[in-house]
Amino acid sequence: MKIEDINNKDAKAKAEKLLAESKVVFMGTNGSHGHPNVRAMVPQKHDETRTIWFATNLESSKIIELIKNNKAVVYAYSQKNMSECRFWGAVSTLDDAASRKHIWNDELKKHYSGIEDPNLRVLRFDISNGIYSNKDGKGGSFTN
Amino acid sequence: MKIEDINNKDAKAKAEKLLAESKVVFMGTNGSHGHPNVRAMVPQKHDETRTIWFATNLESSKIIELIKNNKAVVYAYSQKNMSECRFWGAVSTLDDAASRKHIWNDELKKHYSGIEDPNLRVLRFDISNGIYSNKDGKGGSFTN
Repeated sequence: MKIEDINNKDAKAKAEKLLAESKVVFMGTNGSHGHPNVRAMVPQKHDETRTIWFATNLESSKIIELIKNNKAVVYAYSQKNMSECRFWGAVSTLDDAASRKHIWNDELKKHYSGIEDPNLRVLRFDISNGIYSNKDGKGGSFTN
Repeated sequence: MKIEDINNKDAKAKAEKLLAESKVVFMGTNGSHGHPNVRAMVPQKHDETRTIWFATNLESSKIIELIKNNKAVVYAYSQKNMSECRFWGAVSTLDDAASRKHIWNDELKKHYSGIEDPNLRVLRFDISNGIYSNKDGKGGSFTN
């Protein structure tokens, strides 16, 4: 895949647009027993292409995986436009009031009793670099 | 996530049904530089929950990743039914005529000049174990 056809700034802008349009993204972790793991996740918020915020349940196995190894990839994909982007970075598992407030929204009420639900954890994914490509295989990479 | 609410046989059957209905699945690999990687892929064929066959281009970076480390996860996900399954296993990169013939179909003509296209490679994903869960978090694991 040729990925250097668009410049860094354009790649970043297109990746952010795809992320903003994605109701669901796919987070890959190093997993356990040497096997990677993947799951669908709902981005609760994002700050340009720097940070993506997620909610997760304390009982989720991903928390243990991320404590062992916090390197992750977030993959966004549009089946309609056949475009895709990957963000690489590291995940922090947070439990403070400010982080909970930052991500809280009505949709989360379906899964948590409230903003102080003891099972709610906030995952902050800090992006170090990324790559975008469209259906023609044109794209570009960027670093933060 | 509680995953032991349905038995091994049911979990396998439900995982296979979800796989059969999935036009696109997500393959996670160990990637490079310690960072996992994920990409959307089209399953060309599958044999129950034992083997999934994919096509890939020799120029794809995933080939290098898989030569370095062939452990992978394949994640299938239905946004409609909020069900998901994961298959863990190992990927073999194949180039023989029988494997090419096994996966060849009209859809691949869009991407390859023909069954003998020198850039076509077959990925055979041999599943060792898996896990299925539905929207209520009910599911089960299975091994082959």
